[in-house]
Amino acid sequence: MNYFDYAASSIIYPEVLEILSKSHQEDFANSSSQHILGFELQEKINTIKDDFKKSLGADKLDSVIFTSSATESNNTIIKGVTLDENSVVLYCKGDHPSVVAPVEDLKNHTKIILKEIKLNIDGTIDRDQFDSILGPEVKLVILTHVNNQSGVIQDLYTLSKLIKEKSSAHVHVDAVQSFGKINFKLNPFIDSMSFTAHKIGGPKGIAGLFLKKGHKVKPLLLGGGQEEGFRSSTVAYPLIAGFHQAMKIAIQEREEAFLKIEKHQLNIKLFLTQKVANIQFPFLFTSPYILSFIIPKISSDVILRHLEMRKVYISSTSACSSKITGFNPSLMALNIPERFHKNFLRISMGPRTTESEVESLINEFNAVWESLERML
Amino acid sequence: MNYFDYAASSIIYPEVLEILSKSHQEDFANSSSQHILGFELQEKINTIKDDFKKSLGADKLDSVIFTSSATESNNTIIKGVTLDENSVVLYCKGDHPSVVAPVEDLKNHTKIILKEIKLNIDGTIDRDQFDSILGPEVKLVILTHVNNQSGVIQDLYTLSKLIKEKSSAHVHVDAVQSFGKINFKLNPFIDSMSFTAHKIGGPKGIAGLFLKKGHKVKPLLLGGGQEEGFRSSTVAYPLIAGFHQAMKIAIQEREEAFLKIEKHQLNIKLFLTQKVANIQFPFLFTSPYILSFIIPKISSDVILRHLEMRKVYISSTSACSSKITGFNPSLMALNIPERFHKNFLRISMGPRTTESEVESLINEFNAVWESLERML
Repeated sequence: MNYFDYAASSIIYPEVLEILSKSHQEDFANSSSQHILGFELQEKINTIKDDFKKSLGADKLDSVIFTSSATESNNTIIKGVTLDENSVVLYCKGDHPSVVAPVEDLKNHTKIILKEIKLNIDGTIDRDQFDSILGPEVKLVILTHVNNQSGVIQDLYTLSKLIKEKSSAHVHVDAVQSFGKINFKLNPFIDSMSFTAHKIGGPKGIAGLFLKKGHKVKPLLLGGGQEEGFRSSTVAYPLIAGFHQAMKIAIQEREEAFLKIEKHQLNIKLFLTQKVANIQFPFLFTSPYILSFIIPKISSDVILRHLEMRKVYISSTSACSSKITGFNPSLMALNIPERFHKNFLRISMGPRTTESEVESLINEFNAVWESLERML
Repeated sequence: MNYFDYAASSIIYPEVLEILSKSHQEDFANSSSQHILGFELQEKINTIKDDFKKSLGADKLDSVIFTSSATESNNTIIKGVTLDENSVVLYCKGDHPSVVAPVEDLKNHTKIILKEIKLNIDGTIDRDQFDSILGPEVKLVILTHVNNQSGVIQDLYTLSKLIKEKSSAHVHVDAVQSFGKINFKLNPFIDSMSFTAHKIGGPKGIAGLFLKKGHKVKPLLLGGGQEEGFRSSTVAYPLIAGFHQAMKIAIQEREEAFLKIEKHQLNIKLFLTQKVANIQFPFLFTSPYILSFIIPKISSDVILRHLEMRKVYISSTSACSSKITGFNPSLMALNIPERFHKNFLRISMGPRTTESEVESLINEFNAVWESLERML
């Protein structure tokens, strides 16, 4: 099997699986229980949180909150930050639906003003337009570090600094596609950040939310007051232990993996450029883990079906916006002309994607392409 | 080790662990992915949902939504049901914090009226008082099937029927402590119900929400539109598969386990009654899985500490309200006089709690009690 849909979800690491199984057996208590089994778990959770803070470059007094998904992390901030009437919220329609949907839903509750962050044709944020919509009335800005469809890396430092120069807005970053893959430390202008386990060899059902000290965010889940009051629910410790293991591996392997994946991407790109006439790579400054392209002649679905018959799995669009057929507002925001929305493909890799898998992808793609060309 | 805190969280079943590990390895894809790996997962999820519906006695067209916790399930309903100004919401302050906290938070957003459901001295709902607060203005009622602290089983059928005779209120049931333990089928008067995996040998981080067909509930998590639009987030399939396995075991073993646990509870109660002068068992009509009592002479913390030194784990209060010291509003609602709040203890079992574990609990408790009596 050749799996190239890591941006949707990754294969779990065997080291993570081991920790998960061990923890599911041993750490069965409720971390809120008032006996030693509960206290010990709570201590382990705190140690893991400190480790996450260290890896993010956060302060010990900042918070790391464990949630069930990056969607929950994003929703927690977007719904939880205090917004007054006429507050302006900035977001990009090319962001993940777990950003776009809750932002657009804000209008149903509060008299706030939404403004769109526009992208250049290469997928980077249009700095002039961004500058023009910034101002003291802006109270919340959502930035995506690496876009899940284009793979474009935004310059978080410059952007978040600019925001703080012109406003006191809460700066939230969706770092789901960069966390553990791209070297990055928090900067003083970022107030909160979402990241998740299942994109880096960890289990599904667990994610993180960094929240800078001193910030008040209304919790989404009310109850027993777990997670410093930010997120009530029985703490799913085994998933946290698995996430922790995945994070440690990610950091340990990151630099080497990055260079390797860069090479992989280059090889795939070279092959595609030589093989497929009229192929377009619309984006610049992308993560090596995500390669998006347009093949104008053939619907992406046809290519997907042919590849999957050969046990090669790539993606035609974000798993989370897959229900949309035809016109795709998120691709539109990424400046992909509507006529190409059905021709958009994404190959995404994980840190442990091997050279032989890439060779295999190239061979199978080659075979599919030749058979498709004969048919046309 | 003798674990008697199953009402807080259960030991995972080896059969569940096996399914979990297998699924974590094999089912790594994203169920929203538009290739066969995603489609196959989606189909498996649908089959599991049908199985849950069958086991609950639900209709095929009803919804079973997988959430990350019963807290999330309860919050989803309480925050998601449409309430107009002056709507009346009925709840009991003795319910779990994941019911009480979001209900009491409703007042911060909508001009609604909260009314308390009062309990008789034995922990059952006071039928006369309940009757007196019912009426057409009531729009949401939360009932707890088995209270997590008292263990009292409420007569859901009679209560929910009564609600529907006098109002068109949405009837939500918290079934966390009864699901898989007490024989129960949904009745036509119940609109939604929460249940969870980690109380019945399943993993933490996954729970369920039954929602009757035709009901609209505003989702808590917005994004990719998973779970029929009710709950966006990458679906944590391995956890669902583990939950499914736990549910199947629960149903298969339920009847026999129930009788066995009834006998266990009786033995513990007999021992305590003979051993501990002035012990009080305040509640009637309880689940055999939960035995609560008051030992007026000694603080529950002291007993807990002594037991845990002998590797016996019981609970002094619900894991989720453990941060409360001294006065406990939830125990107050259960009609426990304030002077006894620090003397409240709970022994809770799981379907697989063995006779030898119970014997061991009795022996250790006996030893602890004798040493405490000497000290007094």
